[in-house]
Amino acid sequence: MRNFKYYNPTKIVFGEETISRLDSLVPRDARVLILYGGNSAEKTGTLDEVRSALVNRTIQEFGGIEANPTYETLMKAVELIRNSEVNFLLAVGGGSVIDGTKFVAAAVNFAGEPWRILEEGGSLVQSALPFGTVLTLPATGSEMNSSSVITNKAKQAKRDFMSPFVFPQFSIMDPTKTYTLPLRQVANGVADAFTHVMEQYLTYPANGMVQDRFAEGLLQILIEIGPQAMNTSDNYEIRSNLMWVATLALNGLIGAGVPQDWSTHYIGHELTALYGIDHARTLAILLPATLKICRESKRVKLLQYGERVWGITSGDEEQRIDQAIAYTRSFFEDLGIQTHLSDYNLGVDDIDRVVKQLEAHGLTQLGENRDITLDISRQILQASL
Amino acid sequence: MRNFKYYNPTKIVFGEETISRLDSLVPRDARVLILYGGNSAEKTGTLDEVRSALVNRTIQEFGGIEANPTYETLMKAVELIRNSEVNFLLAVGGGSVIDGTKFVAAAVNFAGEPWRILEEGGSLVQSALPFGTVLTLPATGSEMNSSSVITNKAKQAKRDFMSPFVFPQFSIMDPTKTYTLPLRQVANGVADAFTHVMEQYLTYPANGMVQDRFAEGLLQILIEIGPQAMNTSDNYEIRSNLMWVATLALNGLIGAGVPQDWSTHYIGHELTALYGIDHARTLAILLPATLKICRESKRVKLLQYGERVWGITSGDEEQRIDQAIAYTRSFFEDLGIQTHLSDYNLGVDDIDRVVKQLEAHGLTQLGENRDITLDISRQILQASL
Repeated sequence: MRNFKYYNPTKIVFGEETISRLDSLVPRDARVLILYGGNSAEKTGTLDEVRSALVNRTIQEFGGIEANPTYETLMKAVELIRNSEVNFLLAVGGGSVIDGTKFVAAAVNFAGEPWRILEEGGSLVQSALPFGTVLTLPATGSEMNSSSVITNKAKQAKRDFMSPFVFPQFSIMDPTKTYTLPLRQVANGVADAFTHVMEQYLTYPANGMVQDRFAEGLLQILIEIGPQAMNTSDNYEIRSNLMWVATLALNGLIGAGVPQDWSTHYIGHELTALYGIDHARTLAILLPATLKICRESKRVKLLQYGERVWGITSGDEEQRIDQAIAYTRSFFEDLGIQTHLSDYNLGVDDIDRVVKQLEAHGLTQLGENRDITLDISRQILQASL
Repeated sequence: MRNFKYYNPTKIVFGEETISRLDSLVPRDARVLILYGGNSAEKTGTLDEVRSALVNRTIQEFGGIEANPTYETLMKAVELIRNSEVNFLLAVGGGSVIDGTKFVAAAVNFAGEPWRILEEGGSLVQSALPFGTVLTLPATGSEMNSSSVITNKAKQAKRDFMSPFVFPQFSIMDPTKTYTLPLRQVANGVADAFTHVMEQYLTYPANGMVQDRFAEGLLQILIEIGPQAMNTSDNYEIRSNLMWVATLALNGLIGAGVPQDWSTHYIGHELTALYGIDHARTLAILLPATLKICRESKRVKLLQYGERVWGITSGDEEQRIDQAIAYTRSFFEDLGIQTHLSDYNLGVDDIDRVVKQLEAHGLTQLGENRDITLDISRQILQASL
């Protein structure tokens, strides 16, 4: 196992009817800005529940944060806060709203152009406004971590940052709030969580026994309940487990002390920035191809993954690895997510464009061994056609 | 899944050569009291490493905290602090030293007789001195939780308390510090961690899928590396995994949102208080008997435990449950821990004495269903003979 630091101070309040707890979680004298996305938070009544719980505080609201939250939109929230007395943020939504809120929290007091936080990394962040979240969409894990991904429309760039200052103070997770989600978002959430686990697990073996067992457990649960979540919208047991799995898929625990390979996310970000493909769908396109192209460096873990997660014990090594990769692709397809670039009308010509963007963003050495060069990324994209 | 809150702000610094990080973890202006146990911290050089790392702070030391830390000893530390300028505590040792430090931290500013914290529960605690830990013995998980068990020699009572004020601010976990542990302590640590997991897992089914998978993973790892840890003292991979498993066995995560059955610990505490049997050994005596006596209420999970943890898939239900309980007992015995009261020279007459103590301490409704009455506790003890 590698040396590591692990720290995660976010308070989780999990279960039915928990939004009312906002009254005790948000400081009495807070002047709150509620940040949210589209109309669903209003339509489903979640925003009204939040307003009721905060009835004794000064509240302002900022809606319209997009599915891939943009710098352009978020800077409007930053301006609003700078011209107000707001001193506490509350994100109501999924990972995009929470990621956006993290950026806003860090940008408000940032000296200089806040895009630098994304370009140069979270180490520039020296403070942030305190904030909490009300999660409505299990997927990204943003509700219990310190990272954020932001898109710059003008630059066609999607970048991330991490900072210990942007851990949510608390996250309220009420699984019943996921009952009204469109199936497309449920599927995307399952695929996103699954890939988060894989990117911290499917590397070279590092003898992180807890990390491996926990990762395998999360994958097994997603394989079991992912399809069930697509078939039943209001099953509390399924939705509550899905919500908690997605949080633990990316709260730092399973990745502490082991190598990680975030190449699928980084290449996927370029596909979203260039073509607007849903984030989770870019992962479902790229992950099977990445496992195929990096087969040798990931061989030992691919076999372990096949055996422990999918129960593959027969056949020679090559057959077992092929089977594990095929099952992975089928898992995504069974969620209704297409896994080839051609399914999204992209072809050979688009690969050049993606590789150029990777180069422009300095993403020339990806993967746990930093050996996913631009050429290997190209091979992964070709294997994704 | 049940509604739950989860909060754990302890910062973990894990790995080789990490004691030097104390210099950045302990505040510059801290006046530190180092608390430790017997001579081993001195003999192994760990205390010297700690002193070197804190060279620029004012340091006092308090040694002699026992294996089951006593109120009597700890109150001497409380007096020392009250008559000094100490404002930061550093526990160097295993669970006993850390548990003791938690009590000291809470007792220093407590108004009234501090034993009330144990008698009436941690809710009385309204503040505590800040403290960190340097862990030398993987076992109790105290390095990353907010609970503490203290023995009152005069009252022959062993009681626990929990309070969010006694989370360690940080814990330094260097697996190489376990290389010099006596084998008896290694075995006890494995048994303690194993039982911690079982007490949060082996209840009635509650559909905590993550909690179950994580618990099963921890058990599988302990079964794999427990015997190995007994055979090799300086294998970093084994000792590092053992250390991290023991922490996660009781940091609140696997028990959040599911029922728990701490009857084995509660009955075991009486055995330690009356007869001085090592804490972990009391658990190894009582756990198999508890599974046997509570077979019906735990039936579903016993079968799941047998299948997922021990790979038991053949035989009828009764046979599979018998097998799972037998494997559990063998696991402890293979660590060199005897699992019958008679192995410790206790007999039928002693059972009365233990049951009377349970009654005196109000422990008349134990277990996840609160149906382990004094009569059922008696049956468990009889089944432990």
